[in-house]
Amino acid sequence: MDTARPTSQPATAPPPENAGPIQPAIRVMLMPKDTNGMGTIFGGIILSYIDLAGAIEARRFCRGAVVTAAMREVEFHSPVFVGDLVSFYTETLRVGRTSVTTKVLVEVERREGTGRIERVTEAEVVYVHVTGDDRQPTPLDPECVEAAGFEPKV
Amino acid sequence: MDTARPTSQPATAPPPENAGPIQPAIRVMLMPKDTNGMGTIFGGIILSYIDLAGAIEARRFCRGAVVTAAMREVEFHSPVFVGDLVSFYTETLRVGRTSVTTKVLVEVERREGTGRIERVTEAEVVYVHVTGDDRQPTPLDPECVEAAGFEPKV
Amino acid sequence: MDTARPTSQPATAPPPENAGPIQPAIRVMLMPKDTNGMGTIFGGIILSYIDLAGAIEARRFCRGAVVTAAMREVEFHSPVFVGDLVSFYTETLRVGRTSVTTKVLVEVERREGTGRIERVTEAEVVYVHVTGDDRQPTPLDPECVEAAGFEPKV
Amino acid sequence: MDTARPTSQPATAPPPENAGPIQPAIRVMLMPKDTNGMGTIFGGIILSYIDLAGAIEARRFCRGAVVTAAMREVEFHSPVFVGDLVSFYTETLRVGRTSVTTKVLVEVERREGTGRIERVTEAEVVYVHVTGDDRQPTPLDPECVEAAGFEPKV
Amino acid sequence: MDTARPTSQPATAPPPENAGPIQPAIRVMLMPKDTNGMGTIFGGIILSYIDLAGAIEARRFCRGAVVTAAMREVEFHSPVFVGDLVSFYTETLRVGRTSVTTKVLVEVERREGTGRIERVTEAEVVYVHVTGDDRQPTPLDPECVEAAGFEPKV
Amino acid sequence: MDTARPTSQPATAPPPENAGPIQPAIRVMLMPKDTNGMGTIFGGIILSYIDLAGAIEARRFCRGAVVTAAMREVEFHSPVFVGDLVSFYTETLRVGRTSVTTKVLVEVERREGTGRIERVTEAEVVYVHVTGDDRQPTPLDPECVEAAGFEPKV
Repeated sequence: MDTARPTSQPATAPPPENAGPIQPAIRVMLMPKDTNGMGTIFGGIILSYIDLAGAIEARRFCRGAVVTAAMREVEFHSPVFVGDLVSFYTETLRVGRTSVTTKVLVEVERREGTGRIERVTEAEVVYVHVTGDDRQPTPLDPECVEAAGFEPKV
Repeated sequence: MDTARPTSQPATAPPPENAGPIQPAIRVMLMPKDTNGMGTIFGGIILSYIDLAGAIEARRFCRGAVVTAAMREVEFHSPVFVGDLVSFYTETLRVGRTSVTTKVLVEVERREGTGRIERVTEAEVVYVHVTGDDRQPTPLDPECVEAAGFEPKV
Repeated sequence: MDTARPTSQPATAPPPENAGPIQPAIRVMLMPKDTNGMGTIFGGIILSYIDLAGAIEARRFCRGAVVTAAMREVEFHSPVFVGDLVSFYTETLRVGRTSVTTKVLVEVERREGTGRIERVTEAEVVYVHVTGDDRQPTPLDPECVEAAGFEPKV
Repeated sequence: MDTARPTSQPATAPPPENAGPIQPAIRVMLMPKDTNGMGTIFGGIILSYIDLAGAIEARRFCRGAVVTAAMREVEFHSPVFVGDLVSFYTETLRVGRTSVTTKVLVEVERREGTGRIERVTEAEVVYVHVTGDDRQPTPLDPECVEAAGFEPKV
Repeated sequence: MDTARPTSQPATAPPPENAGPIQPAIRVMLMPKDTNGMGTIFGGIILSYIDLAGAIEARRFCRGAVVTAAMREVEFHSPVFVGDLVSFYTETLRVGRTSVTTKVLVEVERREGTGRIERVTEAEVVYVHVTGDDRQPTPLDPECVEAAGFEPKV
Repeated sequence: MDTARPTSQPATAPPPENAGPIQPAIRVMLMPKDTNGMGTIFGGIILSYIDLAGAIEARRFCRGAVVTAAMREVEFHSPVFVGDLVSFYTETLRVGRTSVTTKVLVEVERREGTGRIERVTEAEVVYVHVTGDDRQPTPLDPECVEAAGFEPKV
C-alpha cells in the first residue's frame, strides 16, 4: 500500500554537521486556544514567542540567565491564523557590556497550501545578563561574545 | 554602549531563496506550565508537538486536511527540561494511496550552555488525508506527491 | 418545585467497600480550548491523557515514580468532540523487572444524548520505575507486584 | 523480561454490560500548571471540575443543554496535591420542572502510595435546562426524568 | 496624523494619593480559550476568578496565607461572553477569629459598545488564615483587622 | 464567631454613579502556570495583558473592532512575582483618523503584605480600527472621539 521511500531529501531531518545557521529560533503551529475574539491568533501569543525567541538568541552570549529589559518597534503587519506555520527568526543587532539587542522577524506559511511565506511581525528586543538571587546586571562573558563574532565591550 | 553589528552571519535570519530543507518542523522552548509532577516536561506535551510536527510534514502531500491515524514506536530516551530548546525534525517514510507515514525525531539543546544536542524521543506517525464533513479518507493529490519526490500510488 | 429524591441509585456516588475495580483511570469532558483547527479534539490532548492514565495503572506496582519509556500501537479510530465524556480504561499487559506495560482504551459517550458508547482510541504504553535524582531504572517492589496479582520478575 | 499476563482482573478495563452505575463523573490527575502560589491545587480548578461533573449528571434529564444556575455549600475540607488522583462523584438531589439539583463529592487518592482515600470537597450545584439562542428555561423531558427514576414535575 | 492629547482625564491612569477604595479586586477580558461547549465563558473560569478576588480581599486581614474554606450562595444570573470586560468587586461581610467572609460581585461591560453594565454573578466566600507547613488555622492579626475598620475577635 | 460588618467602606464594592474614571483597565493575580524558567512571571504574559488593556482603552473610540498595529517603548523595570496583584492602567496619547495610541502603565502590589506599590512595566501601543472581513482600516466614529474628549481627525 505504500511506495518505497525515495532518495530525495527528507524535509526536516536533523542537520548535518556543517549545516548553516539559518534556522528559526522558534517555529510553531498555533491552535484555537491561541485565538482572540476575532478568531485570529491573539497578539499576546505572538509577543510571548517573540520574547522567547529573542532570549534564545541573547543567551548565546552569556553563561547565566537573561531577562527582558525592553521591547521596541514591534510592528504587526498581518494577522496570523490557526494552522499557519509561524517561524521566529532572530539576529543580534548590538552587544553591550551587559546587554544584547536582538531583532526578531516573524514569518508565516499560510495553512492553505500554496506555501506562500509572509512577514507578519517584527520586533527589537533588549535583554540584560543577570546573576545572583537579586538579578544584578552582570557583564557578558567576553569569550562567548567573541565566539559569536562580536567584539566584547569593556 | 554597544558594539557595531559585525559582519558575521546572524544566527537565525530568514533563509535565502536557495536555502536547503533541513529545518525543524517545530521548535519550542518549554515552560514551567509544561511540567509534570517530577519537574520535567510532561510527556503529553512532547507527544502533542510530535503529532503537530508530523502533520506539518504530511500535509505537504495534499490540499486538504490530514488526521492522525496511528502513532507507532514512540521511544522516550531522555527527559526534557524547562528551558531546553526542543526541535522536532520530520521525514516522510512512506506514501500510500490516502495515507502518509512520517518519522519525527526530537532533539534538545540543553539550557545549560554547552550547546550539547541530545536525541530525546523518536516516533512514527501515520496520517490520513480526509475531505468533507464526514472526513472520508481521500486519495492524495498525485501532483503533490510527485512534487515532493515520491511516486503516487494508484 | 422539586420532587423528593427517589430511592433509585445515585449515578456516581462513591463506591461501596466491595465495589469492583472496573472504573476509568481518567474520565474528562473536553472543552473548546482542547480543539484543533478542524474543531475536533486535538490528538495531542488525547495522547496526554493516555500517558497519564497508563501511569496511574503502572504506579500501582511500585512505591516511587514511573516515567514513560515507550508508546506503541496507538490507533485513532474516531474523532472526539467537545462535550463528549471521554473515559480512559487501563489494564496491565506485562510486568517486567523494572517496567510495566499497560493497555489504555479510550471510549467516549457522545454528547448528543443517546448515550452511545464508542471506542475511539487504544494504545500500549511502557513505563519504567525510577528512583534517585538521576532517575535510574529500579526493580519494582515484589510485594506490590504480587499484591496486584502478578508474578515478580527477578 | 516480562511475566505473562495473569488471570487477575485488569484494573480499569471497560465495564461489562451489567456493570453497576457507581463510577466517577470525572476523574483526573492534576499537574503543576494547576497549582496556586502555595504549591497546592488551585481551588478554582477544583470548582471548574465540580461544575462540569454536576453538568454531566444533570444533562441525563434532558435532551438539550444545561447551564449552571447556582452553587451552594461548597466545603473545602483538605488541600489537593499534584499527582493526587481526584474523583468527582455525583448524585441528583432534586428534580424540578426546569432544574436539576446535584450533589458533587470530591475524593482523592493521595499520590504517596498507601492508596488512602480522602473526601476533600463537596458541593451542591443547580442546573437549568435551556433551549434556543436566548437560552430560555425549558421544562425537562418527562421521559428522561422517569427513565432516571424520578417523578416528572408538571 | 494625530490630534494632540486633550486635557480630559485619562481613562485609567494610576490613582492619585487620595483615590477612594472603589476599585475591582480583579478585572479581565476573557478569550475563546475560556469558553464552554456553548460558546459562552465557562462557569469554572468565573468561579476561579471569584476565588482569587475574595482571597485578595481576605488577605488584607493577615500577614500570612489564606485558604478557601467554603463558597456559599453563588448565583449565576447571566452568561458572560468573549470580549466582555468582567469586574470582580469585593467586600468583607464578617471577620471571625481565624476566618474572613467576603462577598464577591461580578459585573460585566458588554463588548458591544453601549457600555451597558450588568451584574452577572455573586458569591459569598469564606477564607481561613493558616500558617506553617501543616496549614493550621491561625488567629488573624488584630492590628490588621482594626486597620481595616473591623473589631478584632478574641 | 464573627464581628458585625463595620460602617467603613468596603474595599471594592461597585462604583457609585459618579465614581471617577481612575480604575485599572485590567487587574489580575498571576499563578505558577504564568512563570518562566526563573520562577518569576513570564514577560510574554505581561505583554499579553498590556495588549488587552490598551485595546480596552482604544475601543472606546469606535463601534467596531481594533487590531494591534504596533507596540513601542515597552520598558520592563522589575520582575513580577506569583501572588502579586498586577494592575494595568491606560490612557490615550493620540487619536488619529483610524488609529488610537495608548499608554499602558503596569503596577504591582507585592504579595508580601506591606502593600508597597511598584511600577514594573510601561508601554505605548497603537491600535487601528478595522471593519469588514478583510479588516480594512476604517475612520473612527467622530461622535465617539468627541465623547471621549478628543478632537476628531478628518
